[in-house]
Amino acid sequence: MADVVSFRKEEPNGLLLREVNGPVLRLTLNNQPANVLSIALMEALLAEFDSVASSKDIKVIVIAAAGKLFSAGHDLKEMTLHRTDEDRGRAFFERTIRLAADLMLKITRVPQAVIAEIDGLATAAGCQLVASCDLAICTDSSTFCTPGVNIGLFCSTPMVALSRAAHRKQAMEMLLTGETIDASTAKDFGLVNRIVPQQYLRQVVDKYAAVIASKSPQALKIGKEAFYRQADLPMAEAYDYAVGVMVENMLARDAEEGIGAFLGKRMPEWKED
Amino acid sequence: MADVVSFRKEEPNGLLLREVNGPVLRLTLNNQPANVLSIALMEALLAEFDSVASSKDIKVIVIAAAGKLFSAGHDLKEMTLHRTDEDRGRAFFERTIRLAADLMLKITRVPQAVIAEIDGLATAAGCQLVASCDLAICTDSSTFCTPGVNIGLFCSTPMVALSRAAHRKQAMEMLLTGETIDASTAKDFGLVNRIVPQQYLRQVVDKYAAVIASKSPQALKIGKEAFYRQADLPMAEAYDYAVGVMVENMLARDAEEGIGAFLGKRMPEWKED
Amino acid sequence: MADVVSFRKEEPNGLLLREVNGPVLRLTLNNQPANVLSIALMEALLAEFDSVASSKDIKVIVIAAAGKLFSAGHDLKEMTLHRTDEDRGRAFFERTIRLAADLMLKITRVPQAVIAEIDGLATAAGCQLVASCDLAICTDSSTFCTPGVNIGLFCSTPMVALSRAAHRKQAMEMLLTGETIDASTAKDFGLVNRIVPQQYLRQVVDKYAAVIASKSPQALKIGKEAFYRQADLPMAEAYDYAVGVMVENMLARDAEEGIGAFLGKRMPEWKED
Repeated sequence: MADVVSFRKEEPNGLLLREVNGPVLRLTLNNQPANVLSIALMEALLAEFDSVASSKDIKVIVIAAAGKLFSAGHDLKEMTLHRTDEDRGRAFFERTIRLAADLMLKITRVPQAVIAEIDGLATAAGCQLVASCDLAICTDSSTFCTPGVNIGLFCSTPMVALSRAAHRKQAMEMLLTGETIDASTAKDFGLVNRIVPQQYLRQVVDKYAAVIASKSPQALKIGKEAFYRQADLPMAEAYDYAVGVMVENMLARDAEEGIGAFLGKRMPEWKED
Repeated sequence: MADVVSFRKEEPNGLLLREVNGPVLRLTLNNQPANVLSIALMEALLAEFDSVASSKDIKVIVIAAAGKLFSAGHDLKEMTLHRTDEDRGRAFFERTIRLAADLMLKITRVPQAVIAEIDGLATAAGCQLVASCDLAICTDSSTFCTPGVNIGLFCSTPMVALSRAAHRKQAMEMLLTGETIDASTAKDFGLVNRIVPQQYLRQVVDKYAAVIASKSPQALKIGKEAFYRQADLPMAEAYDYAVGVMVENMLARDAEEGIGAFLGKRMPEWKED
Repeated sequence: MADVVSFRKEEPNGLLLREVNGPVLRLTLNNQPANVLSIALMEALLAEFDSVASSKDIKVIVIAAAGKLFSAGHDLKEMTLHRTDEDRGRAFFERTIRLAADLMLKITRVPQAVIAEIDGLATAAGCQLVASCDLAICTDSSTFCTPGVNIGLFCSTPMVALSRAAHRKQAMEMLLTGETIDASTAKDFGLVNRIVPQQYLRQVVDKYAAVIASKSPQALKIGKEAFYRQADLPMAEAYDYAVGVMVENMLARDAEEGIGAFLGKRMPEWKED
């Protein structure tokens, strides 16, 4: 709700690198070597999403990763340290898992489009992060797995995102076997949108971001919110809801401008809220 | 409920051409050049679906299009004219969008199988129409998009049909970027069933229609209704519901005839209600 | 809940062959030639699932079939005999269809992973059985269909499983046309996980089974139950539920052992409950 979003400077040595290029906020996981989603990294991500949610300038968020892996998921060392807590770690585990779920839900709730840019392995909650982004673009050498079953900890929260992105049996295969799938299989499964050679990854992601950023932020906000809400409803209720959304959207400034421009064969000019 | 369905004659110059070939009703969008879904065209479609719903003769409905496009979606000119209404168009927009939603829902609720026959571009509500039909068959040069985001009007009602046909990320890519996908991608996404060379389009659609029309209309009606109802239910509830449907179906005349014919190695003879 | 699970001896001439190889229970449909799901065969399957559900030794269940077909679905002869009952068969049909639904639901509710091993045709409730298993592996000459519509009996209960495995339009095509799809199409549709040449079918299934059986049975049980429960929930509720599951899983013995082993770079040792 804050009118002024304070953009912290880039912290090149931090857990999370941030870079703003025009309308695109690029967040780079920098918890190398495995970019595990420690409490600190998840809180940093969530803080970015919280602060950017009300930004009028940022239209697309890219989540990338430094190093050779995208993300290996939860920080098992950090979690294991808390096994000696009085409650055997329960409170810390709840905090960790809930924080991850809140982060994944937040990705679906910010008005900006969120693109995962993957080059390397994305496992467990790292794979959940990919599945939770609106779009995912990866290199042809990227790989994906939900290997919790290998360590006695089934990927039950990752499955929420995974089973909503992929066919049921394909999600189940990843979850039950813990085996790694390649980029091409991930695309077949619905987990990624596009596979590109490594040297073009950034360029393709930037192009997607630029294409989306050229749209009306008002329309993107209305539409993205509607997408995830209607997806949870029975079809007739989804229509009841979406009809209302569409009517409000028609009455909003940018639709009037956009449709006018389209009919007048000129470029539209989006306005800020 | 009417026992007598009055079939209007073909109106070759109308917005909607109709042609009855035995058990197949062929409706051709004829609002050229873009076959936009004006109020008049949607009302004509809905009237056809309403009148045919209780027909005992029509078993399959094909929705095709005249000209080079399948359909460019809503009639933006018609809508824009109402921006000068006292309510800035709200009532007209509600009427338009609701009518489209009712049409799409109706397609899922008539007892006949509905096949979209696409040759050319299907955009926005035109793409929604494709997604809403039970089956979709297109030429290899057909293309699909939900470009509302380009004009500040996110395709929020099209997404209801699109996101139920395709994987989530693939639907999202179409919605966020507004970009056009080719027939092959549309098939990968789950949006169409079959791609055929243009010279065989009508032949393949006719064959699908003939195959479906050869089935028991009673079974088709029971099954199609059950399909969309169970799709909205949790799995155990879906089974509770579908078990009841299946038992009634077993007790219905055509199942007795059909199973008897199958066991007796003869052709079944379906009866009219 | 029984501590002692009584394993009946293999009955090579029975309707259902059973074979235990270490942690894998292999159930072979043996109601040749068509392996129809008669009351007796479904009750035998359900009894196996009931008795194995509390087993600590069995971690994977394979459902295979003897002869040239996987399964042709319900036993239409058996059902037809009951048309002369006083109630025209209603009670028997209810028993049959409910039993099949209970069997399919049971497959999703046992703690073991269930793999369908298909070589040949799987039709109607036989196709439902494939769709209901956690995973499905088939030969390249296997085929699938839901042909109820051909005999006036729409595959309304099979559609519950089919439409949750495949895209909506692809499921609808199978249901409306009754036509047979090949293994490759079934894989595209999401109905099977893997296609293998016939001479390697058993080997590949055994390898999948061995991979899954090497995991913590505790984690498999927790995860499989969570998978089907969360799939029926709206996303935010699915996360609320899955977070609780994941925290309990973290506190369970095998996760402590598994994560400890992973961090200590040693093999985990799963314990029995």
